[in-house]
Amino acid sequence: MNKSNTVFFKNAPRILSSAAVCGSKESEGIIGSYADITLADDMFGESTYEKAECKMLSSAISLVIEKSGLKEENIDVLLSGDLLNQIISASFAARDFTFPFLGLYSACSTMSESILLGAALVDGGYVKTAVCATGSHFASAERQYRYPLELGCTRPPQAQWTVTGAGGLLLGRSDKGIRVTCGTMGRVCDFGVTDVNNMGAAMAPAAADTIIRHFRDTQTGPEDFDLILTGDLGALGSRIVKDLTWEKGFDISNNHVDCGEIIYKVIESEFQGGSGAGCSATVLNSYILTKMNAGLYKRVLFAATGALLSTVSSGQGESIPCISHAVRLEV
Amino acid sequence: MNKSNTVFFKNAPRILSSAAVCGSKESEGIIGSYADITLADDMFGESTYEKAECKMLSSAISLVIEKSGLKEENIDVLLSGDLLNQIISASFAARDFTFPFLGLYSACSTMSESILLGAALVDGGYVKTAVCATGSHFASAERQYRYPLELGCTRPPQAQWTVTGAGGLLLGRSDKGIRVTCGTMGRVCDFGVTDVNNMGAAMAPAAADTIIRHFRDTQTGPEDFDLILTGDLGALGSRIVKDLTWEKGFDISNNHVDCGEIIYKVIESEFQGGSGAGCSATVLNSYILTKMNAGLYKRVLFAATGALLSTVSSGQGESIPCISHAVRLEV
Repeated sequence: MNKSNTVFFKNAPRILSSAAVCGSKESEGIIGSYADITLADDMFGESTYEKAECKMLSSAISLVIEKSGLKEENIDVLLSGDLLNQIISASFAARDFTFPFLGLYSACSTMSESILLGAALVDGGYVKTAVCATGSHFASAERQYRYPLELGCTRPPQAQWTVTGAGGLLLGRSDKGIRVTCGTMGRVCDFGVTDVNNMGAAMAPAAADTIIRHFRDTQTGPEDFDLILTGDLGALGSRIVKDLTWEKGFDISNNHVDCGEIIYKVIESEFQGGSGAGCSATVLNSYILTKMNAGLYKRVLFAATGALLSTVSSGQGESIPCISHAVRLEV
Repeated sequence: MNKSNTVFFKNAPRILSSAAVCGSKESEGIIGSYADITLADDMFGESTYEKAECKMLSSAISLVIEKSGLKEENIDVLLSGDLLNQIISASFAARDFTFPFLGLYSACSTMSESILLGAALVDGGYVKTAVCATGSHFASAERQYRYPLELGCTRPPQAQWTVTGAGGLLLGRSDKGIRVTCGTMGRVCDFGVTDVNNMGAAMAPAAADTIIRHFRDTQTGPEDFDLILTGDLGALGSRIVKDLTWEKGFDISNNHVDCGEIIYKVIESEFQGGSGAGCSATVLNSYILTKMNAGLYKRVLFAATGALLSTVSSGQGESIPCISHAVRLEV
């Protein structure tokens, strides 16, 4: 008998509102007509990429609150994090608001970690409302993790494109809205991948581990979900997660969708798709939740994935530990 | 009427065990005879400072579990974070264990943030046990935030010394042990301080804000606590937090103690004391909890503070946003 790592929310916190802001490249794709703000210029009127990233996140948080019909003083806590060193986008965005802030770091799985913890806080009655939000910016991520754009480096075909965008949602008690019914906490998985240009392959085992544990802990299978939504595995990583879950007896191929694979037009031999904390944050909080609210998807398992490396750990010869937190969303 | 930012734990999760690992300089101070492991060599047998930091944290987590009498399979989740970019110490330490990991970032207030969230998860029945841990290393912090030690830079008198050490505790349900009865979530406070060598002054307003809100939310005052314990304000910051709370009508001067001020011998004109996530983690999880278990302190408000800056934010001319999360510990 395996131990359960799934937490159940008896009072099923609801998603009261959601919002997304996305960059110019992103607005040309599937989320373009669903995002609340689409930027013509990815600098968003700021002087640096990092400040633009922070402004997107802050704007998404403001929009989430505005769309819920609540005021800033009705918000009990913000749970947020991002990819930048010391999560400065989240911390500086939190400075714009008067409510408390709980800083998280889970790389590109921050969106699902924040929903999982936010749902526990609301469900347990510790807070009435919680904003969960994250984001990323292509240019700030490139210069922090890889090379400054100005160098004009060539990108290998297995590389993904960090999404410029931010998204968030508001959790609270209500008798309507999408419910967060349970969540499976991620474990660190490291299969020894060291290629920092191949995050999809590094993260796929973590996604498979969490998805399989969710099925086992809740006695469900792929057929119980309209959508099994991963965060940013990209085209190759998505193939790997399907293989890994299939090997364990779960065929998710019919209902698996990866936010990174759908956010841009993907031809796998040329391009793997989107990545970054903003990838699943924008896709979930615009396209997916709109479809759920319209009744097209009734039950979604959202399992964002994160690669927990740094330039220092890679420089010191370490492989890439990865994680995936999953939450179940139901209409 | 101000809104409450304090969460109450009706079932009062208990501290089942705690452990601390500290470096050579730290072992000469007050925690030397209380820590479980004191290092003769701060490299801890590793090839880099970052790996040594990770090993300290991993050792502290192992010790916490061992001292509780439980096994790894009895642990439901680890809540941890640290100061390094992308919290690699915590992520790589989590790789050593099979239980889930929730990554946090709250700079030097990670210890209290982890207890606050861990207590909510245990109190609400979402998990049975939660390990909360963090740490830091002088040499890895210096080269990431300031200059590599090899440069031999002169330190200004208002600078603090990042503690080499890690500490953690295990929360769970029990009928004995120190109780975590409530916690006040921190808000981001920024008084415009830009001097990265003067963290105490930057963080003191955040500590004062949280301590005062805790008093108001719980209808208590300084006299209700045996100890009001801040994390790493240092000598100057401690003076400032006393002034700021005094201005609002709360005189904490008789029972305020700062972990950073007591961890080393401090002469304020020469040296401000310790800092870093490991500062409050080692002092709380060795010296303070031992005294509480012995009945010397019955009620402690633990309010660790964090400076949410990065080298990038400082380089871009930003001031230092700070935060403090507080938890109340009772015998």
